[in-house]
Amino acid sequence: MSILTVGTMAFDSIETPFGKVDHVIGGACTYISWAASYWYDHINLVSIIGDDFPESEIEALVSRGVKTDGLVRVQGKKSFYWSGRYHNDMNGRDTLITDLNVLEDFSPILPKSFQSSKFIMLGNLTPSIQASILDQLSDPPKLVILDTMNFWMDVAMDELMKLLPRVDVLTVNDEEARQLSGERSLVKAAAVIHKMGPKYLVIKKGEHGALLFYENQIFFAPGLPVADVLDPTGAGDSFAGGMVGYLARTNDISFNNMKTAIIYGSVMASFCVEDFSLSKLKNLNQDEIYKRINQFENLSTFDVKELTVLNS
Amino acid sequence: MSILTVGTMAFDSIETPFGKVDHVIGGACTYISWAASYWYDHINLVSIIGDDFPESEIEALVSRGVKTDGLVRVQGKKSFYWSGRYHNDMNGRDTLITDLNVLEDFSPILPKSFQSSKFIMLGNLTPSIQASILDQLSDPPKLVILDTMNFWMDVAMDELMKLLPRVDVLTVNDEEARQLSGERSLVKAAAVIHKMGPKYLVIKKGEHGALLFYENQIFFAPGLPVADVLDPTGAGDSFAGGMVGYLARTNDISFNNMKTAIIYGSVMASFCVEDFSLSKLKNLNQDEIYKRINQFENLSTFDVKELTVLNS
Repeated sequence: MSILTVGTMAFDSIETPFGKVDHVIGGACTYISWAASYWYDHINLVSIIGDDFPESEIEALVSRGVKTDGLVRVQGKKSFYWSGRYHNDMNGRDTLITDLNVLEDFSPILPKSFQSSKFIMLGNLTPSIQASILDQLSDPPKLVILDTMNFWMDVAMDELMKLLPRVDVLTVNDEEARQLSGERSLVKAAAVIHKMGPKYLVIKKGEHGALLFYENQIFFAPGLPVADVLDPTGAGDSFAGGMVGYLARTNDISFNNMKTAIIYGSVMASFCVEDFSLSKLKNLNQDEIYKRINQFENLSTFDVKELTVLNS
Repeated sequence: MSILTVGTMAFDSIETPFGKVDHVIGGACTYISWAASYWYDHINLVSIIGDDFPESEIEALVSRGVKTDGLVRVQGKKSFYWSGRYHNDMNGRDTLITDLNVLEDFSPILPKSFQSSKFIMLGNLTPSIQASILDQLSDPPKLVILDTMNFWMDVAMDELMKLLPRVDVLTVNDEEARQLSGERSLVKAAAVIHKMGPKYLVIKKGEHGALLFYENQIFFAPGLPVADVLDPTGAGDSFAGGMVGYLARTNDISFNNMKTAIIYGSVMASFCVEDFSLSKLKNLNQDEIYKRINQFENLSTFDVKELTVLNS
């Protein structure tokens, strides 16, 4: 049973109030794969890179159990490049440069060995590419997770709407959930989005945590307050990677286990933001991961005393 | 053992995307007292009103165990009046009118029977008035909770800084914590603010919940996603009222009990926002309160499986 992860592998140039890095390794598929690899070691990667992407980065992933048969390297072209600057509050950012480069030609072919993957993690891409991946699966997957963004709602809403009935878990941020549903209230937005297809809706709120909606139930994974958020880039993808890695490892997609999965996702995201690029995410160990999981438990756990309510 | 609650009693005119109300009952002390009265029935109220404030509102509080010996009614003058309009996202608002009216002359005298109050809840007022309340206590209080805002940091920072060493629990929002501490990171802000005096720092984040900082520990009370937020006015004061009411009832100011207290505060706030003014907060019963506490438990509770971390 394998995870299939599809998305960009890229170079990023990032400016935050705490520093600036130029042409560092980034991309949704990179973050997802690294975060997932702490929990699961059958990961099928589908992406596209140019001849500028370091082979050592691929080798590092292979050594962690990532299969790269679905990775296309295009000679004579450059990898996808994104440059952005974060605002002072770190919650907003401006895109300075988007060079699609190899991404212009991305029309992924699933290798035969990938076609029976069970946990499908579709990173943010055009809905038509995301759909084409599902079309190429030979067996029904166990879980399809889709990440998307407001841009696709603006320019490819029809394709996105056609794709949603095939999706089990949709991950968006709060404004995207509102845009997609036309509802201001997240509770109402979730009800509308469930009807579009996804039985699970994950609303990512950055430093404010993440909400999980399922039927009429809600779970909330807090954002761990960390002393220094150096760079939020990749946090959402690290979250998705931790979540899908944990779900594949436990092979349990119940609501109860999904709650734990988004905590594990939040744990990976909390590491991601503590340094630029994948610097922190590449060097974690058992102790610090479980110490952090324990911090999330302490953050959320309280006792209830059933007292008689007065004056009621 | 009594709660002492000090703050405004007012008329509000409020406009939100969901409606508009004119000259409804408001004020920090009103919300605090109502929310606290579900948990505790020895509440000493200190406030000031004009001859326009309905006697029936006072009687309703008295019937809930609120002592009004510290309430001054000024004949020939009007009560404090605030008018505001909420933005579409409900997180921001513009003040349209602030008529201080009787508040211009507010120089509260603590009745003798109030001077030995143990749980002191100082609603948002000028720091000098808040300090004068503490000066009039005959016995050392068990807990002093102070609510304040950015305005007093702008115009009365010296007085506020002199007051903070006398405060056990400070409640502010995230931007105010940043302004007070000069730190962007809330973790660092908390460390700075602890040194100013308050051993507990509560950071209210509106729909995103509330953080409690104590020594090197953090607890997070989520914001319950409710289907319809009609009016956020008074949510922070309802939160404070639920918190202090629960703390007085249990007479336990340990970190562990403080966690539960801010959940009970969040519960009262979640009711407050579901209708304009005090409409919802005035009509709660045991069942719906504990049903909601149970929703907060479901929102936060997850299982952890200790798995061997791979590739680490």
